[in-house]
Amino acid sequence: MSRDLAQRVLQGERRALARALSLVENDAPEGEALLEALFPHTGRAHLVGFTGPPGVGKSTLVARLARYFRREAPSPRTVGILAVDPTSPFTGGALLGDRIRMRDLAGDPGVFIRSMASRGAVGGLARNTAAAAQVLDAAGFDLVFIETVGAGQAEVEIARLAHTVVVVQAPGLGDEIQALKAGILEIADILVVNKADRPGAQQLARTLENWLGRRTPKGEGPDDASPASASNTPWIPPVLLVTATQGEGIPQIAQSLKEHAAHLKRTGAWQERERRRFESELRERVLLTFWRRWETRAKQLGLSQLLERILKREISPQRAAETLLRQMWSDQETKG
Amino acid sequence: MSRDLAQRVLQGERRALARALSLVENDAPEGEALLEALFPHTGRAHLVGFTGPPGVGKSTLVARLARYFRREAPSPRTVGILAVDPTSPFTGGALLGDRIRMRDLAGDPGVFIRSMASRGAVGGLARNTAAAAQVLDAAGFDLVFIETVGAGQAEVEIARLAHTVVVVQAPGLGDEIQALKAGILEIADILVVNKADRPGAQQLARTLENWLGRRTPKGEGPDDASPASASNTPWIPPVLLVTATQGEGIPQIAQSLKEHAAHLKRTGAWQERERRRFESELRERVLLTFWRRWETRAKQLGLSQLLERILKREISPQRAAETLLRQMWSDQETKG
Repeated sequence: MSRDLAQRVLQGERRALARALSLVENDAPEGEALLEALFPHTGRAHLVGFTGPPGVGKSTLVARLARYFRREAPSPRTVGILAVDPTSPFTGGALLGDRIRMRDLAGDPGVFIRSMASRGAVGGLARNTAAAAQVLDAAGFDLVFIETVGAGQAEVEIARLAHTVVVVQAPGLGDEIQALKAGILEIADILVVNKADRPGAQQLARTLENWLGRRTPKGEGPDDASPASASNTPWIPPVLLVTATQGEGIPQIAQSLKEHAAHLKRTGAWQERERRRFESELRERVLLTFWRRWETRAKQLGLSQLLERILKREISPQRAAETLLRQMWSDQETKG
Repeated sequence: MSRDLAQRVLQGERRALARALSLVENDAPEGEALLEALFPHTGRAHLVGFTGPPGVGKSTLVARLARYFRREAPSPRTVGILAVDPTSPFTGGALLGDRIRMRDLAGDPGVFIRSMASRGAVGGLARNTAAAAQVLDAAGFDLVFIETVGAGQAEVEIARLAHTVVVVQAPGLGDEIQALKAGILEIADILVVNKADRPGAQQLARTLENWLGRRTPKGEGPDDASPASASNTPWIPPVLLVTATQGEGIPQIAQSLKEHAAHLKRTGAWQERERRRFESELRERVLLTFWRRWETRAKQLGLSQLLERILKREISPQRAAETLLRQMWSDQETKG
């Protein structure tokens, strides 16, 4: 059945896609089989992360950008959108808002939007988001947008799943300094100052540009006397003034995305980012696979007997942990 | 040397204690050997967690309570204090404040205070706090206070390391509802409304009492017609009005701590909490021990070769994770 589902996902069937994403999001066993079948077909999409403090207008921006790619770009591209909220255990109003904003794209098979909310661990959300992006990639979307709310560690982690990270800011929120602190700007490939029609937008853009000047590593920046070769030219994140509600500046974001992808591919950084991304996914899957095995075996390995011995102070928690691991190991060996 | 250090800790030598806590806090290998040597001597102390939103005066309350146990209680008891700040990577002003407030206890060998700050993972902080509490327990402190700042998941986790959890609130902070949301009250064995001399304290105490009424599980509460036997009497968390700066209500907290410990021991809940506590410590140590082994072996197991195959889409991240785990297993077996 899941092979059948995979086939339908590869053909871009929307209902199959919705079901596939649910399986992945719920960590269902069929989800794993599905990912297994889809994985060889991934690697085509350009994954773009959008992050920034709440209230800067990320959702509107993402919706506008999707519309641009569908209707206005010189050559239309298909867009899959994952709206991720690490702070909420359920789909909140903001995400419902997205859907409403996306309504004028309804019926266009070249756009697919999905809200993902936190279930349990942050690590789990990052893993499931990575998997969902793989599903959309395999389904043939040219662009996969990963939009995430907030400015904390979780968001940074989720944004890093992308090839290109767009950090969105807006004037007058008083969040600029906080964002700097949170290190969210460190991961920016493209900086957007949204709500550019509001007071303070120019000032904010200058602040960000100054900050970017400081970020440029020594010997790579414009201060360096020797002209860098084309393939070594560092990427200087552009700071774009945008008024998403009016559609102003949207084509410039699209252009920067294209340029960034080209830059990554020219310099080999694309492969480097892929490697980094899969290394963290791999580590997380090692840990998860180990943990699932532990959870199913802990009882039969004598967890409760060891706990009794800990309570009597006959064995320390660390010694007990080592005993359990050793038993798991030999247990595993016996079972082949 | 670490056996020697353990010996000195058991004799309550202060410098040895400071060094032991540093080893444990820094996750040093000698720290593990030390815990191993100390563990059989633990299990005497009453561990008390203090938690609540910032600004409610937890530090002052803890300092006053320590002074009470040293100087005013009918029979003095020794107190070890761990001030834990999960939100800060370094010792901040608040914790420095503690030390100043504790100054009048300086020179009393029956009190020991230690600040612990977050290094890396929250899980790591909980584990290190548990270990630090074991050190103080082994060193012979009658009471070990674990004070933690904030009202999030990390604090709940840290507070749960204790036999008794004291949740501190104060009027006029507007945090009451947030605290309810965060589930911090769910874990309270004793509720303290501090700053009882301020407006709104009585109202806050009533709100908390109403809430406690709702919490009482069916068939155990006062609505139950059959009189419960003494050993089955559920613990109803008292709500205590306290003005810590004036020392008002401090003896009542001491009394409630004593009653709660007696209740736990009478009903068998003490053992139950110990079991729960060690079970989570054990799980965390299993995971950590596994992870350390993984980190040292990942390279020689062919992590980078597998990553290359993932990049070529020849193998999925999940399949690669399983391969690595299988290799770790057989590797382990060969090494005995």
